[in-house]
Amino acid sequence: MSSIDLNADLGEGFGRWTLGDDEALLDIVTSANVACGFHAGDPSTMHRICDAAVERGVAIGAQVGYRDLAGFGRRRIDYDLTELHDDVLYQIGALEAFCRAAGGQVDYVKPHGALYNTAAVDEGQASAVVAAVRAYDPGVPVLCQPGSVLARLAVAAGLTAVGEGFADRGYRPGGTLVPRTVAGAIVTDPDLVVARAVRMATARQVETADGEIVPCDVASICVHGDTPGAVELAGQVRAGLVKAGRTLAPFVAWS
Amino acid sequence: MSSIDLNADLGEGFGRWTLGDDEALLDIVTSANVACGFHAGDPSTMHRICDAAVERGVAIGAQVGYRDLAGFGRRRIDYDLTELHDDVLYQIGALEAFCRAAGGQVDYVKPHGALYNTAAVDEGQASAVVAAVRAYDPGVPVLCQPGSVLARLAVAAGLTAVGEGFADRGYRPGGTLVPRTVAGAIVTDPDLVVARAVRMATARQVETADGEIVPCDVASICVHGDTPGAVELAGQVRAGLVKAGRTLAPFVAWS
Amino acid sequence: MSSIDLNADLGEGFGRWTLGDDEALLDIVTSANVACGFHAGDPSTMHRICDAAVERGVAIGAQVGYRDLAGFGRRRIDYDLTELHDDVLYQIGALEAFCRAAGGQVDYVKPHGALYNTAAVDEGQASAVVAAVRAYDPGVPVLCQPGSVLARLAVAAGLTAVGEGFADRGYRPGGTLVPRTVAGAIVTDPDLVVARAVRMATARQVETADGEIVPCDVASICVHGDTPGAVELAGQVRAGLVKAGRTLAPFVAWS
Amino acid sequence: MSSIDLNADLGEGFGRWTLGDDEALLDIVTSANVACGFHAGDPSTMHRICDAAVERGVAIGAQVGYRDLAGFGRRRIDYDLTELHDDVLYQIGALEAFCRAAGGQVDYVKPHGALYNTAAVDEGQASAVVAAVRAYDPGVPVLCQPGSVLARLAVAAGLTAVGEGFADRGYRPGGTLVPRTVAGAIVTDPDLVVARAVRMATARQVETADGEIVPCDVASICVHGDTPGAVELAGQVRAGLVKAGRTLAPFVAWS
Repeated sequence: MSSIDLNADLGEGFGRWTLGDDEALLDIVTSANVACGFHAGDPSTMHRICDAAVERGVAIGAQVGYRDLAGFGRRRIDYDLTELHDDVLYQIGALEAFCRAAGGQVDYVKPHGALYNTAAVDEGQASAVVAAVRAYDPGVPVLCQPGSVLARLAVAAGLTAVGEGFADRGYRPGGTLVPRTVAGAIVTDPDLVVARAVRMATARQVETADGEIVPCDVASICVHGDTPGAVELAGQVRAGLVKAGRTLAPFVAWS
Repeated sequence: MSSIDLNADLGEGFGRWTLGDDEALLDIVTSANVACGFHAGDPSTMHRICDAAVERGVAIGAQVGYRDLAGFGRRRIDYDLTELHDDVLYQIGALEAFCRAAGGQVDYVKPHGALYNTAAVDEGQASAVVAAVRAYDPGVPVLCQPGSVLARLAVAAGLTAVGEGFADRGYRPGGTLVPRTVAGAIVTDPDLVVARAVRMATARQVETADGEIVPCDVASICVHGDTPGAVELAGQVRAGLVKAGRTLAPFVAWS
Repeated sequence: MSSIDLNADLGEGFGRWTLGDDEALLDIVTSANVACGFHAGDPSTMHRICDAAVERGVAIGAQVGYRDLAGFGRRRIDYDLTELHDDVLYQIGALEAFCRAAGGQVDYVKPHGALYNTAAVDEGQASAVVAAVRAYDPGVPVLCQPGSVLARLAVAAGLTAVGEGFADRGYRPGGTLVPRTVAGAIVTDPDLVVARAVRMATARQVETADGEIVPCDVASICVHGDTPGAVELAGQVRAGLVKAGRTLAPFVAWS
Repeated sequence: MSSIDLNADLGEGFGRWTLGDDEALLDIVTSANVACGFHAGDPSTMHRICDAAVERGVAIGAQVGYRDLAGFGRRRIDYDLTELHDDVLYQIGALEAFCRAAGGQVDYVKPHGALYNTAAVDEGQASAVVAAVRAYDPGVPVLCQPGSVLARLAVAAGLTAVGEGFADRGYRPGGTLVPRTVAGAIVTDPDLVVARAVRMATARQVETADGEIVPCDVASICVHGDTPGAVELAGQVRAGLVKAGRTLAPFVAWS
C-alpha cells in the first residue's frame, strides 16, 4: 500500500483567541481533527474549518475532549463514564451539523489531550469513547495509537481503529511514546523528523530511543501547527513523503 | 382537522441542577422542546430525555438559545449574526446525536427565551435562526408565534412555520401577547386556561384581554412545567382537549 | 470548652437553578460555606447569602472548588498546582468583595467536593490550597477533616486548621470516613445522628462502624441542606446540641 | 500639571490562549487594565500580571466586563442590573486577591468592551457599575470617557471619574468618538498618533475629524497591544510624551 494520511489538530481557537495557522495546515494535511467546543473550538470556527476542509477534500475528524476550556482538555478529569459517553456523543453531533452544511460528514473521531492519553490506558474511559462512537455510527473509525487500550476496545466493539504515529516523538521498544518529562521525548532535527515519517509511511517501522527498529503500524502521521516552525516542518514532512513515492490521501478515502 | 399538539420545555437542568418534572411532562405532552446546552441542558440530560421521548412517541424539538448559562438564555445578546447562526446550527447537531442514538431525529426547532422574543421581532436574529435551520435540513419546521417575524422569514425561506399558542397568557387584539409587566399578562384560573386551550384547539381563536375574539392559528399549545402546580395544569389542559374531541398528536406526525 | 460550631454548604445554586434551602439553613448554622462560582454559586447568590449571614452573625467561609460547573466540583481534576493555587485565590477574593460590601469578611476557607477529598490525601493539591490561603491572609483558618493531609500541611505552614465532623457519616477506627460505596457510610436514623453530634460536641469522640469509641477532635459539625428532610435534621442536631448544654457559635468567634 | 498616565488592556488571554504582548506593554504603560475572568483573563494570568505590575510600579485597574468569554465581552447583553452590579463586584474582588498577594491593590476600575460602550450612554448599566465600585470602596476611581454617562453618574455618587483619551481614534466635535463603521474612525499614521497624544497630554485638546480643536480633558491615554505593530506604536507614544516634557506616572499616584 502506497498511501499515507497526514493529520493535524485544527480549529483550536475559541472566540477572540486563535491558535496555530489553520489555513496553512489545511493545504498540507489530508485529515483535520477539528476541535468541537469542549476543550477548544467554537461554532463559527468549526463552520469555517469544515467548509474549507470539504472544499479541499480534507477528511474531517471530531477532535473530542473533556469539558475544560480553561485547561484546554489537558488535565485528566475523573469523569462519570456515562457523562463522558454523553459529552463525546454531543461533540460528534455538533460537528456533524457543520460537516453536513458543508456537504461532508464526520469521517472519524480522535480524542484530544488528556482524554487521548487516558483512553490509551484506561479501560473505563476508553469504553465510554468507543460506546459513544458506536451509538453515533459504528461505521465511523477511531484514530488512535496502535496497541492502545482504546484501539483494542474499539476493535472488540466492531469499530475500525486506525493507527497514527508521531514522527517528532521518541518511541520506546514496545511502541509507546517516551514521556515528555524524559530525555529523548521530542525529536527536533527537521531532517530526522522527515526521515522518521518516511520510515513510518514506507516500512511501517520506527527507530526507538535505543536505536532498535520496531513495528509501527500506522496509516496516518500526526503533525502539529501551534508552535513556531511547526507549519514549515509539516510541509517538509509532506514533501518528504511525496518524494518517497507515497500518495497523500485521507485514510477514510483509501480503497 | 381534529388534531392538536402540546409542547413544553424539557431538559432544562444543568449538571447537578434540575428544573421542572421532565418525567411527568413526558406523559402529558406530544412534543418536547429539549434544551441543547447553551442556556440550559447538558449532554446526559439530553440523552435521557431523547430516549424517553422516542420511547413514548413524543416528538423532539431543538430548544436552541443564546450561549448564556448564567442568564438562562433570558437576556438579549447583541450577537454577531454569523455567530448566532453557527451557535444555533451547533445546538441542533448536538441534539441530533442523541435523537439518532435513540432511534429518532430532531423533528423541529424552537428558539428559547430572549432568542424567541428577539427573533419574533428582529429581522437579523430571525434570519440567522432561519438560515441555520435551512443549512441543517430545510425539511425541519420552526415552532414559533403566528405572525412573528420569525414565522414570516421561515416561510419566505421555504421552511415550515408551525404556530403555537399560550393558553395561560393574555393576548392583545393583533394576536401578540400582553407583556409580562402589564396586568392581564398571565391567566391563573385553571378552568379558564383549559377553556382557552380548548378554544384555540377547536376554533383556532383566542379571547383578548379586551374580550374580543380573534384568530389564533396554532397547531400546538405550549404548557409549562417549572412552576408549582404547572404539571397538574398541563394535565388538565390535556384532559380538556381530549374531552373536547381533539386527538393529541405531535404536529410533525399529522398527515 | 462548651462551644460548638455548625457549618453547612450554602449558595450552591447557579443562575436560574437553586439547590437546598439557604434561608432555612441560615437560621440553623453558625458558619456558612459559600460557593464561590467555580463549581457552583454565582455573584448574585453570593451577594444575598453574605448579606443574610452578616445580618444573622453567621460566619462566612469560602467554599472553594474546582472549575467545573458541569460536574459540580465532584470530579477529581489533575490540576497544574500553580493553576489550582490561583483558582483558589481568585475565589477567595471574589467572595471577600461581597463580605466587605455586607460589613463582614471571609472568615475561613473550606474546599468542596473532589478538592476536599483530594486535598485530604494528596500533598500537591493540599499544598496549593494552603499556599493560596497563606497568600491571601495567614490569619484565615482552614476548615477540614482532623488528621487529613490538608490539616497537617496547613498547620505546618502556620495556618490554623479547624477540624470538622460529620454526624451522619460512618467512621473507621483511624478517624477517617467509611467510603460512600461501603455499607455503613451513611447514618440515617435522625435520633442517632443527633446523639452522634452531641457526642462529638461534648466528648470530642465518635463511635466507629465497629462500635469502638475513638477521638474526633472537631470544633464544627457539618450538616446538609440539599436532600429531603435535611434541613429538619439540621434543626434537630442544633436543638440536641443546645439541650446538651453547648453554646452554638461560629468557631471564628470563640475566645 | 506635567504628568500623564498611559493605560492599556492586559491579561486578555484565557488558559492556553494568549493575546497581545503583556510583558512588553508592562514596560511602556503606567496603568494596566487587567481582565478579570468574565470576558477574558484567568486566575494564573491575573497572578502573573499583578506580580509584574507591582514590581514595576504600574498601577492596576480592574478591567471588568460582561460574562461572555465566547464574545470577548464585545456583545451588548441586556443584564438584569442587580446581576450586573454583582458580576462587577465579583470581578473586582477576584482581582484584589492577586493585587494583595503581590503587595498592591485594585487602584481603579475600567469597564471593557460592550460594557464600556453601554455604560457610556445607558444610565441603568452605568449606575450598576458605579454602585458596585462604591460598594467595594468609594475611594477607587473609575477610568472612563470624559462626558460619558458613566463619568457623570460616578461623580454624582461621590466617586472619582478619571478621563481617558484615544490618540488613535477620530473624535467628533462633542468629544465623542467617530464610530468604527465610519470613515475617520481610526488614525493609522504613527506620527499623527504620537502628535495627537502629545496634544492631549499637554493642551488637553484633540483635533476632530473636521479639523476643529476641542477640549479633551484626559489624565490617561489608552494604547493597545493586540494588533501588529501596536506595541511599537505604544512605545512611540510614550517616547513622544517624554520628549514633550511630560512625566509618565500612574494617575492614582499623582499628588
